[in-house]
Amino acid sequence: MAADLPNFDTPDRLVTAVVQDASTGRVLMLAHMNRTAWEETIATGRACYFSRSRGRLWRKGEESGHVQHVREAYVDCDGDAVLLKVDQTGAACHEGFESCFFRRRTDGGWEVIGEPLVNPKTIYQQKE
Amino acid sequence: MAADLPNFDTPDRLVTAVVQDASTGRVLMLAHMNRTAWEETIATGRACYFSRSRGRLWRKGEESGHVQHVREAYVDCDGDAVLLKVDQTGAACHEGFESCFFRRRTDGGWEVIGEPLVNPKTIYQQKE
Repeated sequence: MAADLPNFDTPDRLVTAVVQDASTGRVLMLAHMNRTAWEETIATGRACYFSRSRGRLWRKGEESGHVQHVREAYVDCDGDAVLLKVDQTGAACHEGFESCFFRRRTDGGWEVIGEPLVNPKTIYQQKE
Repeated sequence: MAADLPNFDTPDRLVTAVVQDASTGRVLMLAHMNRTAWEETIATGRACYFSRSRGRLWRKGEESGHVQHVREAYVDCDGDAVLLKVDQTGAACHEGFESCFFRRRTDGGWEVIGEPLVNPKTIYQQKE
């Protein structure tokens, strides 16, 4: 089985990628990969995803410069999810936060944890 | 926007849940939630998911006893993923490993990290 991992024989031919900061363990974001994105990620050591909204490969940081260098990669028992431990340049979140998971549940609502690392208005003016 | 989080207005009415050990930061598993599963999780403090394969609510540990007490919950910027920090009883993985992500990428293959905490053959003989 292990030779066929990850298993892209899913309805949408995608697997889910959990992205974790290799140093702090903080979960940074969730994304998706098709086989091409996975193979490029492993070959280059830089995270490449498949953007479902744009319908194409998404080389993380291609517009923002906020690239991810992959230190370790894991696959889950079912083969349809991978875990990447990365060194994140800049902010993982397009809203400028270190992590996309910046809202924490409170009694009956949500609170924003931390401050944006960068101004989201400036992220997409930076080109690699 | 925050009042409508998580956002279950997705094609399958589900959001993805990343589950992380609250103490160690280890990513344990990935699962899915519909609104009912989310609301039950928040109300009870015990993780409840929606099993896509079984087409019904899945109260984690209902068969194995390996329940998850939720310490914190986060939602991501797009609202279609949540992060649960949990205290895991027993093993998160149905194969008996602490984490479902027990296979690490090597040069050209995969290696199993760690040993099962419990014998998977015995997990589903234990009833809560």
